[in-house]
Amino acid sequence: MEEWFKKRHARRKELTADNLFTKLVTGDKQALSSAITLVESAAIVHKKEARKLVKKCLPHSGNSFRIGITGVPGVGKSTFIEAFGSLLLQMGKRVAVLAIDPSSLSSGGSILGDKTRMPRLSVHPNAFVRPSAAGSTLGGVAATTRECIYLCEAAGFDVILIETVGVGQSETLVHSMVDFFLLLMLSGAGDELQGMKRGIMEMADLLVITKADGYNIAQAEVAAKTYNNALHLFPQKESNWVAKATTCSALEDKNLETVWEILERFYRHARSNGWIGHQRKEQDKQWLMEVLKDLLLKDFFQDTHWKVKLQEMEELVRKGEMTSLQGAELLFNSFKSS
Amino acid sequence: MEEWFKKRHARRKELTADNLFTKLVTGDKQALSSAITLVESAAIVHKKEARKLVKKCLPHSGNSFRIGITGVPGVGKSTFIEAFGSLLLQMGKRVAVLAIDPSSLSSGGSILGDKTRMPRLSVHPNAFVRPSAAGSTLGGVAATTRECIYLCEAAGFDVILIETVGVGQSETLVHSMVDFFLLLMLSGAGDELQGMKRGIMEMADLLVITKADGYNIAQAEVAAKTYNNALHLFPQKESNWVAKATTCSALEDKNLETVWEILERFYRHARSNGWIGHQRKEQDKQWLMEVLKDLLLKDFFQDTHWKVKLQEMEELVRKGEMTSLQGAELLFNSFKSS
Repeated sequence: MEEWFKKRHARRKELTADNLFTKLVTGDKQALSSAITLVESAAIVHKKEARKLVKKCLPHSGNSFRIGITGVPGVGKSTFIEAFGSLLLQMGKRVAVLAIDPSSLSSGGSILGDKTRMPRLSVHPNAFVRPSAAGSTLGGVAATTRECIYLCEAAGFDVILIETVGVGQSETLVHSMVDFFLLLMLSGAGDELQGMKRGIMEMADLLVITKADGYNIAQAEVAAKTYNNALHLFPQKESNWVAKATTCSALEDKNLETVWEILERFYRHARSNGWIGHQRKEQDKQWLMEVLKDLLLKDFFQDTHWKVKLQEMEELVRKGEMTSLQGAELLFNSFKSS
Repeated sequence: MEEWFKKRHARRKELTADNLFTKLVTGDKQALSSAITLVESAAIVHKKEARKLVKKCLPHSGNSFRIGITGVPGVGKSTFIEAFGSLLLQMGKRVAVLAIDPSSLSSGGSILGDKTRMPRLSVHPNAFVRPSAAGSTLGGVAATTRECIYLCEAAGFDVILIETVGVGQSETLVHSMVDFFLLLMLSGAGDELQGMKRGIMEMADLLVITKADGYNIAQAEVAAKTYNNALHLFPQKESNWVAKATTCSALEDKNLETVWEILERFYRHARSNGWIGHQRKEQDKQWLMEVLKDLLLKDFFQDTHWKVKLQEMEELVRKGEMTSLQGAELLFNSFKSS
């Protein structure tokens, strides 16, 4: 047998649930990486192994602090995560960074795929950085990311940072898989200008005004104050946690400890009173629904035959030969009886 | 044959497409009312006639100005529509008022069902007021309302006001079936306090600050000015229309002409440059998709058998025996193979 074939065969063998699991629970980053590749794979044979692997990991999962981080492009997410993650590493924590990137759906990869944007974390033995998952829909990507959380937890990571770009639907998806939602903002830009939807601000447990250094300090402090006042106007959170706003400078490593103290205070409180456990159960339930909806819709909309039928129907509706309602009912009925 | 039976039989006979259509196109309000009842009916036999009727009406539809009106409870929607509608009637227009009311889904009827809230319009020969449609989902109600627009147009109504309560998803649905979106607001309340999502303000073609009378005038003027400035910050609309803000008092019949002038300016412009036609085609396409999605999801989620299966799966996920993704995939596969 040729050498390359042996190697390839050996690699393939590694991609089994049992094999990966044994290494993964010891904290082996290479195994974790392969496990995520397996979970992301669309191949049927991989799907079965992936399911088995995640099932094995489930009893070992749940012991991390899951933190969502978002903010519009330019807010300094990478720089923040690099500096904040390094601080956590210094505290002896094991830190995993996962990303959900809506832009990668069309471009097939983006800035988030670039590991060089977090050089310190990427090479640290206690850190694991994984770029955006692959997938054909945002929901699909997010579903995979959720499974990856369990894998990271089984591999012993105790802080998981899930980042996304603050531009739309992806925040809601991230919010529904984390314990704490951290929103990075710039001072000096109204939230209109930051393209931030109000709904996202309402989801935030903590607003961090970034780049509070040099000439920006005063402005950042004012912004934090303003937000602190505004946050009181929002309806109270189910967790009884009152959202806060603070500033930091990742460039000058300033105030990152304060950010962590706030997060830790939340975690201690929410862990002890059972909120985190409760919240995760609710999230699981909601996700079951979301994924199911995604599958039911994809079944029609990603089928070539029905794509063509839909186009034909659009044409009939366009010509005024029937209404949208009538067209949809006809299409649905023929889909059901097929 | 007894009298009541004859009457009942006669009424039933009326509920046929041909019968209703002949009367409806002459502008017969009673026939329009029965036609809407037919379209709203869930009975199979009615559905068939309804489809036939709407199809007959389609070539006679499309000639109205479709205006969406929203605002939070308390903003004075009924009072505004009553006064504004009366102005349009004075101008010789025929005015229909339809409503989409999310609250009626759970309560089975609400304030919107109360015709007495628009006493002048309700009795005027050239006005037609119809309370919220029946249905089990907001999407279903909205789909029916869309068919009702065609019926009203075929019955010769040239202005159709579609109102909804400004609390959430229903605005998006209304926005997707109208030519112009009018948002009523109160002065003196930040939009946080009005529970208004930013997305709704972005959809508005015109903001009208209501209750600009008595002590409120100055405050209302300031609010209109502030909004006029803020509206410039929003991204440009596809229609090239720049959203405006103005004030009015329905109580004192003040400034309602101005509101109509703004709407008419839009209509003339958007009709002549083809925007309205283009927009309606886009809306039709989008609705075909929305209704189809609604049907595909209802097929699973409103089936008793699958409801039970879903609950069982939720329990398994809750116990940590599988992940949401795995549970959803299992459910979907057994649904497909059933």
